[in-house]
Amino acid sequence: MAKPVLQALQGKKTATTPIWLMRQAGRYLPEYRKVRAQAKDFLNLCYSPELAAEVTMQPIRRFGFDAAIIFADILLVPDALGQKVWFEESHGPRLEALDGTRAIGQLSIDRIVPHLAPVYDAIARVRAQLDPDVALIGFAGAPWTVATYMCEGGGSSDQAAARAWAYRDSIGFGQLMDVLVEATITHLKAQVDAGADVLQLFDTWAGALDEAGFAQWCIAPAKSIVSALKAEFPKVPIIGFPRGAGARLHAYVRETGVDGIGLDSGVPLDMARRFLQPHACVQGNLDPLRLVAGGAAMHSQVHAILDAFAERPFIFNLGHGIVLQTPLEHVEALVKLVRDKKAS
Amino acid sequence: MAKPVLQALQGKKTATTPIWLMRQAGRYLPEYRKVRAQAKDFLNLCYSPELAAEVTMQPIRRFGFDAAIIFADILLVPDALGQKVWFEESHGPRLEALDGTRAIGQLSIDRIVPHLAPVYDAIARVRAQLDPDVALIGFAGAPWTVATYMCEGGGSSDQAAARAWAYRDSIGFGQLMDVLVEATITHLKAQVDAGADVLQLFDTWAGALDEAGFAQWCIAPAKSIVSALKAEFPKVPIIGFPRGAGARLHAYVRETGVDGIGLDSGVPLDMARRFLQPHACVQGNLDPLRLVAGGAAMHSQVHAILDAFAERPFIFNLGHGIVLQTPLEHVEALVKLVRDKKAS
Repeated sequence: MAKPVLQALQGKKTATTPIWLMRQAGRYLPEYRKVRAQAKDFLNLCYSPELAAEVTMQPIRRFGFDAAIIFADILLVPDALGQKVWFEESHGPRLEALDGTRAIGQLSIDRIVPHLAPVYDAIARVRAQLDPDVALIGFAGAPWTVATYMCEGGGSSDQAAARAWAYRDSIGFGQLMDVLVEATITHLKAQVDAGADVLQLFDTWAGALDEAGFAQWCIAPAKSIVSALKAEFPKVPIIGFPRGAGARLHAYVRETGVDGIGLDSGVPLDMARRFLQPHACVQGNLDPLRLVAGGAAMHSQVHAILDAFAERPFIFNLGHGIVLQTPLEHVEALVKLVRDKKAS
Repeated sequence: MAKPVLQALQGKKTATTPIWLMRQAGRYLPEYRKVRAQAKDFLNLCYSPELAAEVTMQPIRRFGFDAAIIFADILLVPDALGQKVWFEESHGPRLEALDGTRAIGQLSIDRIVPHLAPVYDAIARVRAQLDPDVALIGFAGAPWTVATYMCEGGGSSDQAAARAWAYRDSIGFGQLMDVLVEATITHLKAQVDAGADVLQLFDTWAGALDEAGFAQWCIAPAKSIVSALKAEFPKVPIIGFPRGAGARLHAYVRETGVDGIGLDSGVPLDMARRFLQPHACVQGNLDPLRLVAGGAAMHSQVHAILDAFAERPFIFNLGHGIVLQTPLEHVEALVKLVRDKKAS
């Protein structure tokens, strides 16, 4: 087994820079749209092991990425806990908004493994098909980000409901976070048992928290999750992705113990090279809109990233998920650009 | 004249920390909602000097803030340039989306001063009523942020249209930015002529740009605007607010020449104290949701901010605009907390 993504996360240099893209299994692919049309709805696709495995494999077959990431959603955890989740075509995710601490008692961690069994089945199916050199990434939403959807009853532009609750009643909100930390640990462990080689924790809305909130609701839960996973699976690397953390990335890396740190596109390369790369494998951070633009806008920034991080192991990725309007030939060109550049 | 906000921006210590709040004239105030109901729509309120002056004064009368900020909107500039803008009650701002470089030729900088005359009239009215110790802030949206609305035809969660255009065709997009830089300079100068003591440049969506984009579309335009204003009005301080800039705040302060730097709530206090405060007057950065929560969540963070920045002049503010559901008594308590703390 010589998976370049694993090697990079273990601090070893690789012949070429490994690459995968967030949301690489998705609507920009015609073959994904075909499978998606077969599934009743988005959740049904996540819960159909054969279809979920198929869409997970599609970008690997087409582009030869160094990692597959299991096709699933961060809101499967609240769904498994018993908070009803559904997806509306034009509105994105919807949840029955959580009605304070009373409702927390109705969430059941015992449901995680049985309810999410189809995800673990899909992981096993992907692992069976996947080239041994390609890593398989399991993932979960970080508790804070999942809580923002649970409190709002869907997505929002400012995560105000969760922030208001967290600030007003940190004990009550802390009870929800405790449930989510435990549920996340359970879900991630089961993904490793099923065959995941690497784990990623997506804290998409970490940037919405202020400094004290970030320490309490982003760093502390990530630290608990990382230590629980490391206690059982010391060799499975964990990538943290606290999007929008900005100048707080240092504290996140130092305090959580993650092996890899996902960088959004706003992170300055020189800062990451000097202050983060010595402590964790960096992963990122091309703006997905540069991949849409292609040409010089993409080339110049890809080279800037490859040059900035050349001296230590790193993983090439976008700074956020790939977007619908991305031309497939730009993805091909990106993979070629990254592969053609020999590590120094 | 001993305006504490001006003194702080000039690097002088003040007896107590000056305070004002972004969006302090707004819907959380019952007296604002009353005036708003009299105006046909939101734009009509902005363009009615008497009403705009009245709502600008309301929070000063009620809370005694150290600065008034003229009631207006960052989208008045595209409206004046000739791109139709309207506000829908439930959807926020709408614009006829800009149709590429051809449409740029139809924007007219000559219309800025005549079209925005009611704003300058409102500024003069406010200055005439305002206590001489209270500063009057004029403002504009930064060109990048205004461009995101002009390209999307409204607000968006990711500013994808402007990013895509900026990356794909930096020459065409640069033409739009050149128009906006010039229009912004014209608009800000006219506000000083009318009586504004301080200017603030709001780059709400600066965080959406990657490092190279930030240098090109956030820092460079701000630098042009600051130098043009300084050439004519060397004594009028300028506050830059590149929201979401994170670790790029250093570069922004160093390169633009702003006198003050607005901090969003995500900026770590220690970082700001060590690396920003020596170079500019910092302004910020209480999370508006802590003001909604009140109590311990507010007190602890207010004291953390006051303590962190106590050694040099600074201006207390929120990290983003005050929100609708803010209890008025929490605002009163905040002003008292800040005023009761003597500067060291």
